[in-house]
Amino acid sequence: MADFQNCDSCSSSPLELFERVTAQGEKVRSLKAVKASTDEIDAAVKLLLSLKVTYKTATGQDYKAGSPPVNFSPVSNNGPTTTQDEDFVDPWTVQTSNAKGVDYDKLIVRFGSSKIDKELINRIERVTGQTPHHFLRRGIFFSHRDMNQILDAYENKKRFYLYTGRGPSSEAMHVGHLIPFIFTKWLQEVFNVPLVIQLTDDEKYLWKDLTIQKASDYAIENAKDIIACGFDINKTFIFSDLDYLGMSPGFYKNVVKVQKHVTFNQVKGIFGFTDSDCIGKISFPAIQAAPSFSSSFPQIFKDKEDIQCLIPCAIDQDPYFRMTRDVAPRIGYLKPALLHSIFFPALQGAQTKMSASDPNSSIFLTDTPKQIKTKINKHAFSGGKDTIEEHRKQGGNCEVDVSYMYLTFFLEDDDKLEKMKQAYTSGALLTGELKKVLIETLQPLIAAHQQRRKQVTDEMVKQFMTPRKLAFEF
Amino acid sequence: MADFQNCDSCSSSPLELFERVTAQGEKVRSLKAVKASTDEIDAAVKLLLSLKVTYKTATGQDYKAGSPPVNFSPVSNNGPTTTQDEDFVDPWTVQTSNAKGVDYDKLIVRFGSSKIDKELINRIERVTGQTPHHFLRRGIFFSHRDMNQILDAYENKKRFYLYTGRGPSSEAMHVGHLIPFIFTKWLQEVFNVPLVIQLTDDEKYLWKDLTIQKASDYAIENAKDIIACGFDINKTFIFSDLDYLGMSPGFYKNVVKVQKHVTFNQVKGIFGFTDSDCIGKISFPAIQAAPSFSSSFPQIFKDKEDIQCLIPCAIDQDPYFRMTRDVAPRIGYLKPALLHSIFFPALQGAQTKMSASDPNSSIFLTDTPKQIKTKINKHAFSGGKDTIEEHRKQGGNCEVDVSYMYLTFFLEDDDKLEKMKQAYTSGALLTGELKKVLIETLQPLIAAHQQRRKQVTDEMVKQFMTPRKLAFEF
Repeated sequence: MADFQNCDSCSSSPLELFERVTAQGEKVRSLKAVKASTDEIDAAVKLLLSLKVTYKTATGQDYKAGSPPVNFSPVSNNGPTTTQDEDFVDPWTVQTSNAKGVDYDKLIVRFGSSKIDKELINRIERVTGQTPHHFLRRGIFFSHRDMNQILDAYENKKRFYLYTGRGPSSEAMHVGHLIPFIFTKWLQEVFNVPLVIQLTDDEKYLWKDLTIQKASDYAIENAKDIIACGFDINKTFIFSDLDYLGMSPGFYKNVVKVQKHVTFNQVKGIFGFTDSDCIGKISFPAIQAAPSFSSSFPQIFKDKEDIQCLIPCAIDQDPYFRMTRDVAPRIGYLKPALLHSIFFPALQGAQTKMSASDPNSSIFLTDTPKQIKTKINKHAFSGGKDTIEEHRKQGGNCEVDVSYMYLTFFLEDDDKLEKMKQAYTSGALLTGELKKVLIETLQPLIAAHQQRRKQVTDEMVKQFMTPRKLAFEF
Repeated sequence: MADFQNCDSCSSSPLELFERVTAQGEKVRSLKAVKASTDEIDAAVKLLLSLKVTYKTATGQDYKAGSPPVNFSPVSNNGPTTTQDEDFVDPWTVQTSNAKGVDYDKLIVRFGSSKIDKELINRIERVTGQTPHHFLRRGIFFSHRDMNQILDAYENKKRFYLYTGRGPSSEAMHVGHLIPFIFTKWLQEVFNVPLVIQLTDDEKYLWKDLTIQKASDYAIENAKDIIACGFDINKTFIFSDLDYLGMSPGFYKNVVKVQKHVTFNQVKGIFGFTDSDCIGKISFPAIQAAPSFSSSFPQIFKDKEDIQCLIPCAIDQDPYFRMTRDVAPRIGYLKPALLHSIFFPALQGAQTKMSASDPNSSIFLTDTPKQIKTKINKHAFSGGKDTIEEHRKQGGNCEVDVSYMYLTFFLEDDDKLEKMKQAYTSGALLTGELKKVLIETLQPLIAAHQQRRKQVTDEMVKQFMTPRKLAFEF
């Protein structure tokens, strides 16, 4: 273990190490809360990961928030352990030291979810009679919980509903934020089911230095971008927590039900909360859990409490829904099913999740064609070689090339994508040429989004956000 | 210190003692949560008090939940300390070893409130032009926070509003539960101000083994008894948390504001919560805080955020409002003012607060004249002597006599009360005769209440509980 970042940890006791990891975790969270610079956060996260490795070496156990070390058996000091590669994923921090991104197969094992395999994708195709979305075909939605149950029910003509959401931390959304919405829209069209979209403005008020008003304003602005994805107003209900809680006879009751069945010890273990966290953060997971139960939306589902919920979301949101699935049977409800996506990489590389506060970390939905071009040319991390000669000879590496990764998200044509992969890998396609394809894919896509967003009126937002019956009978 | 209840504590370290007190506190709370027998709870509370004394002896510090001992300086072992007399008061447990009841002067010092003195009572009389209620004259409402501010504002024609409440833990309310409502009604009539009454059915669901439906039902039943006190429907809004949170555009926003500004460490210190408590309990104090702010009731106060709140309540509720007053200026709101009452004693003596789950611990609002008579004759703790001869010679002790205490609450005639006190103290009045006066005071009072309650229709309850404008312009 030659990788200590800080000599303090060399001679520390397991408990001291535990406390250092905990403190560093808090530091990372607070840096994120105050929107510190990406560099500052990255440095803090790296130290955190390194401390965790040290902790594991000293105790033989993975660090688990809220669980100080017991019965530790130190790992031998003869060289690095595999845990050095371990990724860090929670709803506020996603970090990996691997340029290919997070190791999602390991994450499936660690989170206890199931891989979306060829068999499941085939079944979705059979059941719906539709070609599976390229997010499924390409492993962008890669993990699930109980998706087969949803398909069983669907085959038995039992309807389910979709639930996804967004934390409105700023006005600016980037293309990565569209992933769950693009996929959810496809699911809604294919299965023809109701959809509820939660905007957690309360969460953003609690976590960030924002006023209630500002968080509400961001929710409205974000709703416009979501609506611009093309959701059917007759089948979709968008709500902001700060507003909807005061309008729904069922929502708060479900929040309290969840809150009765989850202890501080549990949220400490799941989310890493500490005694210094405000009680709003500590109880918030119940607010994100409640939309998983149909009785939170009596205007849509009447008094039906047994309409199952399917949640498409990025895998970092899974801790909320692991908690929800644990509580559900104890309060007499069905566990929500889940479809997990991988993270959309930052332009700078797949080591980090993007940050809405760093304009150069991604393509924003407000970017001009020129900005898109400049950002990609200037910032998109390249898997190509340093010189044209070398590149032609050795070829580029698609696994770490951000432009290629972005194309897997946004270029729908499988053949074209495959051909580019081969050409880039062989060296026939240069980085500049690959970037050009991405620029020409994103420019019209973003322009079309901006066009649709312009057509979203305040009146439409109001309609989407009014609690009402949707075009389904329950 | 010869009062150890358990030899384990004799040789324990301060930290071990701290943990024992904490564990015992949890035991008391869980016994109360599962509605254990009064005897079982009393025994557990006594052990708790004794452990606290031991703790103070060992550390020289008062036990403070969540704050393990630091820099302790053991008190000398030469005899008992005054803390042995210390009372235990929090929203769930009130316990004293003194038959006269809790030492309220000490409580004022400990809680940092102010005594309601003759000067304040005179000022209330001057400002309102009304004879102060006998609850004020007799020290039943004995402590306050910022009442002079309320009177200043009132003199300057600035209106305030009243807020009180009840935790609906069962259908059965006893006469003691009427105290805050009787006094609040007087305040409302004298000052002519709006009144909001919170029924914390969510709290009871969280703390007790109750379903949401049962807690809601209790709230409705309790509302009927409250309405039967004679509140003016045009000036009073009664609400259940489980319902109102889903109907108010302002309430949840204020809940989240409070929740952002209170940490787990703080509620641990104030309420003694532990890591094993559910996140619902941990965040609940914000729900009881929110009605202290006028913006939680936009239907009554429109967009006015600066209407001050006056809260009449029993002193055990003060921890909630100490927290509220601490948060208020940080979220741009006025601190609520408070008027605190003493506890209504159990028939068995002033050592305990009454329990709605023990039918013999008080007079219930549903008791028949015969039940009232039997209970008082059989259970009301007497300050008289064992034999008539002794009593005639030495006289009785009003300070511990429960019948006399009850009369101070319910016999409005000051002269008659004073004469009885003298006669009982001198021995001229026997216990049986004193009990007869109480029986004859309570029987018509309860009968009249039952009569009024019968006239409370479901429609009236619905009206009282509908969010609406009251008969005041804001």
